[in-house]
Amino acid sequence: MAAAAILPELATQVVIPVAAAVGIAFAVLQWVLVSKVRLTPERRADGGAAKSGPSDYLIEEEEGLNDHNVVIKCAEIQSAISEGATSFLFTEYKYVGLFMGIFAILIFVFLGSVEGFSTESQPCHYSEGKTCKPALANAIFSTIAFVLGAVTSLVSGFLGMKIATYANARTTLEARKGVGKAFVTAFRSGAVMGFLLAASGLLVLYIAINLFGIYYGDDWEGLFEAITGYGLGGSSMALFGRVGGGIYTKAADVGADLVGKVERNIPEDDPRNPAVIADNVGDNVGDIAGMGSDLFGSYAESSCAALVVASISSFGINHDFTGMCYPLLVSSVGIIVCLITTLFATDFFEVKSVKEIEPALKKQLIISTALMTVGIAIISWLALPAKFTIFNFGSQKDVSNWGLFFCVAIGLWAGLIIGFVTEYYTSNAYSPVQDVADSCRTGAATNVIFGLALGYKSVIIPIFAIAVSIYVSFSIAAMYGIAVAALGMLSTIATGLAIDAYGPISDNAGGIAEMAGMSHRIRERTDALDAAGNTTAAIGKGFAIGSAALVSLALFGAFVSRAGVQVVDVLSPKVFIGLIVGAMLPYWFSAMTMKSVGSAALKMVEEVRRQFNTIPGLMEGTTKPDYATCVKISTDASIREMIPPGALVMLTPLIVGTLFGVETLSGVLAGALVSGVQIAISASNTGGAWDNAKKYIEAGASEHARTLGPKGSDCHKAAVIGDTIGDPLKDTSGPSLNILIKLMAVESLVFAPFFATHGGLLFKYL
Amino acid sequence: MAAAAILPELATQVVIPVAAAVGIAFAVLQWVLVSKVRLTPERRADGGAAKSGPSDYLIEEEEGLNDHNVVIKCAEIQSAISEGATSFLFTEYKYVGLFMGIFAILIFVFLGSVEGFSTESQPCHYSEGKTCKPALANAIFSTIAFVLGAVTSLVSGFLGMKIATYANARTTLEARKGVGKAFVTAFRSGAVMGFLLAASGLLVLYIAINLFGIYYGDDWEGLFEAITGYGLGGSSMALFGRVGGGIYTKAADVGADLVGKVERNIPEDDPRNPAVIADNVGDNVGDIAGMGSDLFGSYAESSCAALVVASISSFGINHDFTGMCYPLLVSSVGIIVCLITTLFATDFFEVKSVKEIEPALKKQLIISTALMTVGIAIISWLALPAKFTIFNFGSQKDVSNWGLFFCVAIGLWAGLIIGFVTEYYTSNAYSPVQDVADSCRTGAATNVIFGLALGYKSVIIPIFAIAVSIYVSFSIAAMYGIAVAALGMLSTIATGLAIDAYGPISDNAGGIAEMAGMSHRIRERTDALDAAGNTTAAIGKGFAIGSAALVSLALFGAFVSRAGVQVVDVLSPKVFIGLIVGAMLPYWFSAMTMKSVGSAALKMVEEVRRQFNTIPGLMEGTTKPDYATCVKISTDASIREMIPPGALVMLTPLIVGTLFGVETLSGVLAGALVSGVQIAISASNTGGAWDNAKKYIEAGASEHARTLGPKGSDCHKAAVIGDTIGDPLKDTSGPSLNILIKLMAVESLVFAPFFATHGGLLFKYL
Repeated sequence: MAAAAILPELATQVVIPVAAAVGIAFAVLQWVLVSKVRLTPERRADGGAAKSGPSDYLIEEEEGLNDHNVVIKCAEIQSAISEGATSFLFTEYKYVGLFMGIFAILIFVFLGSVEGFSTESQPCHYSEGKTCKPALANAIFSTIAFVLGAVTSLVSGFLGMKIATYANARTTLEARKGVGKAFVTAFRSGAVMGFLLAASGLLVLYIAINLFGIYYGDDWEGLFEAITGYGLGGSSMALFGRVGGGIYTKAADVGADLVGKVERNIPEDDPRNPAVIADNVGDNVGDIAGMGSDLFGSYAESSCAALVVASISSFGINHDFTGMCYPLLVSSVGIIVCLITTLFATDFFEVKSVKEIEPALKKQLIISTALMTVGIAIISWLALPAKFTIFNFGSQKDVSNWGLFFCVAIGLWAGLIIGFVTEYYTSNAYSPVQDVADSCRTGAATNVIFGLALGYKSVIIPIFAIAVSIYVSFSIAAMYGIAVAALGMLSTIATGLAIDAYGPISDNAGGIAEMAGMSHRIRERTDALDAAGNTTAAIGKGFAIGSAALVSLALFGAFVSRAGVQVVDVLSPKVFIGLIVGAMLPYWFSAMTMKSVGSAALKMVEEVRRQFNTIPGLMEGTTKPDYATCVKISTDASIREMIPPGALVMLTPLIVGTLFGVETLSGVLAGALVSGVQIAISASNTGGAWDNAKKYIEAGASEHARTLGPKGSDCHKAAVIGDTIGDPLKDTSGPSLNILIKLMAVESLVFAPFFATHGGLLFKYL
Repeated sequence: MAAAAILPELATQVVIPVAAAVGIAFAVLQWVLVSKVRLTPERRADGGAAKSGPSDYLIEEEEGLNDHNVVIKCAEIQSAISEGATSFLFTEYKYVGLFMGIFAILIFVFLGSVEGFSTESQPCHYSEGKTCKPALANAIFSTIAFVLGAVTSLVSGFLGMKIATYANARTTLEARKGVGKAFVTAFRSGAVMGFLLAASGLLVLYIAINLFGIYYGDDWEGLFEAITGYGLGGSSMALFGRVGGGIYTKAADVGADLVGKVERNIPEDDPRNPAVIADNVGDNVGDIAGMGSDLFGSYAESSCAALVVASISSFGINHDFTGMCYPLLVSSVGIIVCLITTLFATDFFEVKSVKEIEPALKKQLIISTALMTVGIAIISWLALPAKFTIFNFGSQKDVSNWGLFFCVAIGLWAGLIIGFVTEYYTSNAYSPVQDVADSCRTGAATNVIFGLALGYKSVIIPIFAIAVSIYVSFSIAAMYGIAVAALGMLSTIATGLAIDAYGPISDNAGGIAEMAGMSHRIRERTDALDAAGNTTAAIGKGFAIGSAALVSLALFGAFVSRAGVQVVDVLSPKVFIGLIVGAMLPYWFSAMTMKSVGSAALKMVEEVRRQFNTIPGLMEGTTKPDYATCVKISTDASIREMIPPGALVMLTPLIVGTLFGVETLSGVLAGALVSGVQIAISASNTGGAWDNAKKYIEAGASEHARTLGPKGSDCHKAAVIGDTIGDPLKDTSGPSLNILIKLMAVESLVFAPFFATHGGLLFKYL
């Protein structure tokens, strides 16, 4: 038997909730700091300026344009965006809530039927000779966990959107004081979301384990099987958030750009454009709420995957609570590490010029990774016994605490590598994006060809990084190793989300500056923030995809274990057809989402054109456009269009598992994973590169860039076309694919008891 | 022991070479018929016109423009194209020949080293207790087979190019008499290539088996293992043909279009465009020679995969020559069936109007499939014993002759389904392409978004068709079933190639009409031929990809058997990392080829611009452009750029097998297969759809199409951008991916004895 860990159970019971509470408190503190920026002109004029010291003159004052109405305007625009986003999310949640209700019933029925809804205890699956709780209990608690996960995900996304729409105008106003001030405001707001999400995800999971434990008692096998419903709930919500939000934001964005920038030659975010509010709402519901739900889902799933494997390993068999909670302890350490890391961006150093923005964000990644490596080492030493065993498809594998440290660390560092590679391929500071920009000389076609090639090329190193992580962590600790590697990659999620949410906030801030008619120098500052934000968004997507790959493999392993499959043999035709069909699913899914964006954008274009043609004085700026109709078009389109792709993802595992059985389903999961991860990476990097190639030409910061510009030149027009094509790739279809691969895996895991008992009807009766 | 087949060995020995000879004779006959169209004005004027009857007046005569110089001009242009193509192919073959020489040595060294170059006989692998020829013999004969395959592929491609460049101007001249005449000329020329290739592939393989058999005698296991080198040679050649030819043709095409159509607003194929000859040469070296080599490779590989499995099944063990030759007999029947089918297009019916072209081509597919189904039934009854056994990863599986009929037939019909689905998604007669055309209203960006979505969507049904074929044929006859299903799909290869080669010939014919300054009505006729050709090209690519998927799975199965792997378990990290890296390879490869096309096109654009800017009188048509420099740019670029992607494909199996061993290599093959087939299908259909969306707008044949046109409208410009982006997708990276997946599989099979003995160095020493 393995020795106990250094950290006693009581300490574990204290450390986890305390870390979560600290995270939440820190988020609240950041929110308070952001709220210091006043959105009412009176107070700002005397209070704000007096506090901030001599360097804090405003651009308007410098330019002699100190117009106090601008603040009121900003506040108005902000509230329009916030209202639009809130109303969309409520509509979305109404429909998704209905779907979730139905799915919750499905979970209960499917899992309850495993033993015919019997309330009798049953022999355990893995702990031989012991008795476990009835399958019906699993059905009930899985359903509860599912609802908990969905609600937590929903709340996370919603709060993220709220703080983002709270911060956007404040960032604009701070940009008048300097780029550093604006940066800090945007970054703090991102941090609110990052910490809230990481801490609440941890806390809810921790509470659920403890509450469920009251019923389950010694039956940890059943307890953690039921807990996996939490991951499923989180990811299901994320799917609709990503797809619905993604369609919303890109329909508005593409529609606004096609008429505004291309046909009417008015700048981005010009208040005359009827789709401009919808576009800014979209950033918040798609990039903020969607991304939040997505990463929360990954986090919940990797924790669940690790826990379910741990429960049938020596931790679970010996009822070693501290060892069992190792995944949660890693996340707890992560919150503390990210807290310290955040201070480097907001307090220890100051961003003074535009050039320092990207390095400051990059430093966040490096610092958090370095500190976290130490943190993981300490917690591995404290929380794990020196030797223990991990379940490995039927046998138990010996693992040391240092081995497990390597698993978590390799995931963490693979994430950093993926982040840097993504940055290299999507930042306009490096040659790949500059080459793409250069190819605009010969028009949009070469721009697209080079952009697609760039995206394809950018998968190479991330895939090798993922492959090495998988090989090493699996060799050390089987599927548990992969699950904790995924957790390692996500352990700095608070920082990752902060720099990720920062992007759309800056984007919105720029939009508000434009709409409020502020000085072009403010727009330049917010553009610089936004350009860095495009890169960090791509990095965030890189993390999301990399962790999704590891998570879904870990879930896949847990599913296979639970379904009692010993071998997934590619040479078996049942598996192979699953593999090839699974590899096709990301294409099917992408076809749906891209077409949805395209059709919705066409409708938006028609509406925007209609308004320009029929509302007199609109082009001259004397009449206001009808923003509400555009918001409605985006809302309706995204609600309607998110159903088919959502159904594809949610129903595939059910149909395949029920009709074709667990072997074919294993093939489908593996195929979707290995194919989806490639499309997801290439789509989001291609889109990011096109966006920044366009910004590179617009900014004209180098000799080379100036030969391609200025705005409105043929090169720039070609770049705008690339940017528009990239929108659905990078913000709708690409990032949704993470969820596709994760969700199918976690759903298979939750339904594994049913598939193992009743699955494969078609092959049985043929 | 199984009963003997009805067909005696002697009859088999007669039927195969006779069928091949008939095929070659038919090809020669078609050539003779094409050559009746005279390219010299004198003879045509009296001889030709006299023969053709009253309806055969020429368009020029009708329009009062009967200019005999036009024939001389056509002949001149044709000879320029032919010279360009010949010179490029010779340059290409010089480099490829060097590479092949080195690779032949590698094969010899690797395979010879298996038993340390020992000349002693060794115990057989599968036939227990028997003695087989030494490994050194396998090394020598594999090398010879490799060279034979490469040379046959080379000759096939070269002859195809020759007849295509012989037929193009003749098609133009016939177009003066009517669309039906032109159609028959183009189609007959395609048939020359189709029959030559199918027949010579069969004949060389048959002769090789008989000659090698003199040495091998009773050792069929060794004999057919050595024969697999034939497939490797064919596919290696095809790789360079496809990639080199693909880069050549698209660099020229994209370059010519970007300056000519977009900047200078001159029509396609205008003689003032300096890249126009290079563009027309490209069609012949890329679409004709490349496609020919590709399908020859598939054909050779599926035959080899079937033969190598058969040799260790009851056919081989009992030395049942007729049963053993079943794959060759299926191909023999295919030649006869295609011969009859061809007569339906050229003799039994007549194409009278533009609208009848596509149905006539479609009928070819249906007729050949229907007839072939009967043919397969007959040959399965004649050539197979009622019961026999097939090797199935270590055991022998009982199979009946009717079971095998189903395997071949399901492959054949799956091919037809893939063909029709491809047609549906790429022909402008249906809504998908019309939707794409319609999306051009809002510009190039929506066109690209819709086009990409269309390509993604078009993979769904083909993948299901392939999956069902795999499941059924594997269930009936294990990996042998899959190999013969692939053969079934390729059994009508002569017809498939005929309708495929018809496209580029028509394309060239249109180019010649434009360059020779002929009436626009001739151009309209050739454009109609060409539009149908775009669809048939996409169908051909669909066949090529579908068969490649089946072939590479069959080869993969044969490789796994030969390497002694019993299980390829996705849950093993060695396999999984192979799977995910394998799934990445098509992206890496596509990134290389697309970037190559992009860079080469940029160079071409610069040269074309330079000529327009510096050669006085060029734009006015008073001076001739410098065609040769453009031809040289395409040649140099394609020769230089084909090396890295070629090396990636050729070296990956060697490196992975040697360093990581057969398990990881199995993962790589499976991953590349399931991922590559999706990209290949979507890339070629997206490209085909864009091309035809453009043609739809240009032709303006419907109310809807006219609202989008005419040529030069904003919609049309957006469509041209899509078409240009699609060029490298559909003609370079997409179709090359077939070869990637097939070639890695056949290479692994050939090197299997080495990997099984010496492979996996890295894991051994770590």
